Amino acid sequence: TAATPDSTKTPTLAVIGGDGIGPEVTTEALKVLKATVGEDAFTFVEHDLGAERWLRTGEVLPEATIEELKASDAIILGAVGAAPGSTEIPSGLLERGLLLKLRFLFDHCVNLRPSKYYPGTASPLSSAVLEQGPIDFVVVREGTEGLYCGNGGAVRVGTEHEIATEVSVNTAFGVERVVRDAFERAMARRKKLTLVHKHNVLVNAGGLWKRIVEQVSTEYPEVTCDYLHVDAATIMLVTDPQRFDVIVTDNLFGDILTDEAGAITGGIGLAASANINTTGDFPSMFEPVHGSAPDIAGQGIADPTAAISSMVLLLDHLGRPEDARRIEAAVEADIAARGDAKRSTSEVGDAIAAAVRG
Amino acid sequence: TAATPDSTKTPTLAVIGGDGIGPEVTTEALKVLKATVGEDAFTFVEHDLGAERWLRTGEVLPEATIEELKASDAIILGAVGAAPGSTEIPSGLLERGLLLKLRFLFDHCVNLRPSKYYPGTASPLSSAVLEQGPIDFVVVREGTEGLYCGNGGAVRVGTEHEIATEVSVNTAFGVERVVRDAFERAMARRKKLTLVHKHNVLVNAGGLWKRIVEQVSTEYPEVTCDYLHVDAATIMLVTDPQRFDVIVTDNLFGDILTDEAGAITGGIGLAASANINTTGDFPSMFEPVHGSAPDIAGQGIADPTAAISSMVLLLDHLGRPEDARRIEAAVEADIAARGDAKRSTSEVGDAIAAAVRG
Ligand SMILES: CC(C)[C@H](C(=O)O)[C@@H](O)C(=O)O
Ligand SMILES: CC(C)[C@H](C(=O)O)[C@@H](O)C(=O)O
Repeated sequence: TAATPDSTKTPTLAVIGGDGIGPEVTTEALKVLKATVGEDAFTFVEHDLGAERWLRTGEVLPEATIEELKASDAIILGAVGAAPGSTEIPSGLLERGLLLKLRFLFDHCVNLRPSKYYPGTASPLSSAVLEQGPIDFVVVREGTEGLYCGNGGAVRVGTEHEIATEVSVNTAFGVERVVRDAFERAMARRKKLTLVHKHNVLVNAGGLWKRIVEQVSTEYPEVTCDYLHVDAATIMLVTDPQRFDVIVTDNLFGDILTDEAGAITGGIGLAASANINTTGDFPSMFEPVHGSAPDIAGQGIADPTAAISSMVLLLDHLGRPEDARRIEAAVEADIAARGDAKRSTSEVGDAIAAAVRG
Repeated sequence: TAATPDSTKTPTLAVIGGDGIGPEVTTEALKVLKATVGEDAFTFVEHDLGAERWLRTGEVLPEATIEELKASDAIILGAVGAAPGSTEIPSGLLERGLLLKLRFLFDHCVNLRPSKYYPGTASPLSSAVLEQGPIDFVVVREGTEGLYCGNGGAVRVGTEHEIATEVSVNTAFGVERVVRDAFERAMARRKKLTLVHKHNVLVNAGGLWKRIVEQVSTEYPEVTCDYLHVDAATIMLVTDPQRFDVIVTDNLFGDILTDEAGAITGGIGLAASANINTTGDFPSMFEPVHGSAPDIAGQGIADPTAAISSMVLLLDHLGRPEDARRIEAAVEADIAARGDAKRSTSEVGDAIAAAVRG
C-alpha cells in the first residue's frame, strides 16, 4: 500500500545530501533518476541538514524544515554524521535529532533492506559458500520501536554509582504492521519468512513477536515460516545466506543483520534502503545503508551504487515499477561489468545513467 | 585474579552434561582433562539438570543443587535446552532458569570467548580475507547486566493493545570490572582493545561504556583503544577479522558477535567459553559456545572440540597454565591434521587425549 501521489501534479522530492560522501552519492542518484524519468517528472527541493549545518548554525532539524519535508512526496537522503570520534559533535545528536527523528516523525515503520549478491562483486565469503546458490533476500526491519525509542536514562552519571538504562518498547500495533508487510513481500517472492529475535532471553518482546508472526501466518498458509535467534542468524548469514528470503525483525537486530548482510553481498557500498510509511500519511525516505564515511569524503571515490539503488525502491514506492526495473537492470549490468579498474563516483553515476538511457 | 583453590585439598568440579549433545561432548572434555591432570587431580560431581530433568521432575535448578554447585571449585557445563520450536518446554525456561541463572547467581561478570582461526578448518570466509593474516582475538562479554537482567514486562498480553518491554540495565560497577579485565587481557596479548556498542542510539548505556573505557585506558597507556558500532563490528568480523585483539562489549552484543566470530573461525563446534567470577567468591563455569543441537544428538557425531577447549580455559583459571597449554597444543595439532574423514565424537576425544598423554 504505497502512497499514490496525486497524478495531476508533479511530485516533490525532498533531497538531503547531508555530510561526508552523502552529497557526492546523492548527486549521482539524482543523475540516474533524472536520466530515467526525465528532468521534469519531479520537483527537487534541497535541504541543507547534517553535521556541517549544525556546526554553522546550531540547528539540527528546524520546525520549518520539518513542515517542508512533510509536504514532500518522498525524501532522498545521502548520509549524515560527523567523523567517528569527532568531539565537535555530541554523540548521537545527528542520529537521534535528524535521521531517527525523521523515521519517527514520519512513522517509517518498515525499514526495507534488500540484499542480493551479484557474481563478480567482492564478497568476503568463500566460493564454496557463494556456490551454494543465489543470495537474494530482504530484511524488513521495524523502524519506529524497540531500543530506538530513546526510552532510557542515567543517574549518578560519571560516578562509580552510575546506572544507565535503555528500554526496548514493542507494541502489538507496531509489530503487526511490519509482520504483515513482511508476509506480503514474502508472497511476492519465494514465500519464505524468517523471524529473527532472541525470545529465549527477551521473553516479553520476543514472545510478542512470535505470537504475532504465528497469528498473521494463518492468513498466509502458502508462506513457510521459521525462527532464528539473532546470534544464530549472524552465523547463517555467513554459512548459508541462501536460506533467507524475507527476514522480519526488530529495529536493533535489523540494524545489525543488515550491515552484516551488506558486507557479505559486496559491501555496504551497494546496500540500499527504504524507510517506508505504510499508510501514506507521511513521506517515505530512501537512503543508502552506509554512512557519511568522512575518511573518503571529498575525494570523489565513494561508490554511489547504494544511493542509486535506493532510487529503485523510491520508484517502486511511487508506483513507477517499470522505471524502477530500468534502474535495477542498469545497476545489475554495471556491477556485472565491473573489473578491477577504480572508477570515480561520477564515472559510476555517468555509466549507470547512460545505461538507463539505453 | 583467578580463584586459587586451597592447594591442600582436591578441587571439586561440578559437571552438568545437560541435554542433546551436551553430555556427549562433556564426556570427551572430561576424558581429555583426566588424560592431562590424572584421574585423581579433581573430584567430579555430576548434576542432572536440563530439559530432560525438567520434563521428568518439573525441577529446573533446585536449591540443594545450587548449594552443591556453590561449594564446587568450578563448573563444567555441556549444553542445555530443548529442540528449537519444542512446545513441551516454555521458551526461555531453561535459559533463564538454569544457564543465565547460574551466570547471575555466581556473578559471572566476564564471559570470555576466544576466537582463533586454524588454517585448514572450514571457514566461510574467502581465501583473500583469510590470507590477510592470522585471526586471533578474544571477546570479553559482560555476563551479568544489559538486556539479560530479565528486567522487562508486558501488559494486555495477546491483545491488539499489548505492550512488551525489555530493559537493559548497566552500572558503572558492572561495566568497569569487565573493562578492567579486558585491559588486563590486552596487556597479555597484542595490546589492542576495541569497545563495541551503539552509543549513537543507546546514548545512556553507550555513554557509560565509552566513559569507563576512556577512564580505565589512562591506566593502560600501552593499550591502543578504538571503538566500533555493533553494526560496523559485524562487518569487520567478515572483512577484516585480523583487526581485532580484545573486544569488550555488553551482554547482548557479545552474544551476537561471538556466534559470528565462531562461524568465521571454523564454526561454533570449535568455540569455547568461560563464565568467570573475577573475585573468586563463586565458582566459574566453563562451556562450549554451541547449544544442545538436538538435531544431531544421540548419534555420536557432535564435535567435542569446543568442550575440550573450554578445559583449557578451566585449567588457566584454576592456576594450571602448563596443563592448559598441553591441551591447547593437542587440540591445535588435532585440528591441523583434520582431513575430510568424519570422526565420531569419541574418536576426536580419544585422539586429543592420546596426544595430551604424548
Ligand atoms: C546511524 C544509525 C542511527 C542508523 C541506525 O542505527 O539505524 C544506521 O546504522 C542505519 O542502519 O541506518
Ligand atoms: C542460550 C542463551 C541464553 C545463551 C546466551 O544468549 O547467552 C547462548 O546463546 C550463549 O551465547 O551462551
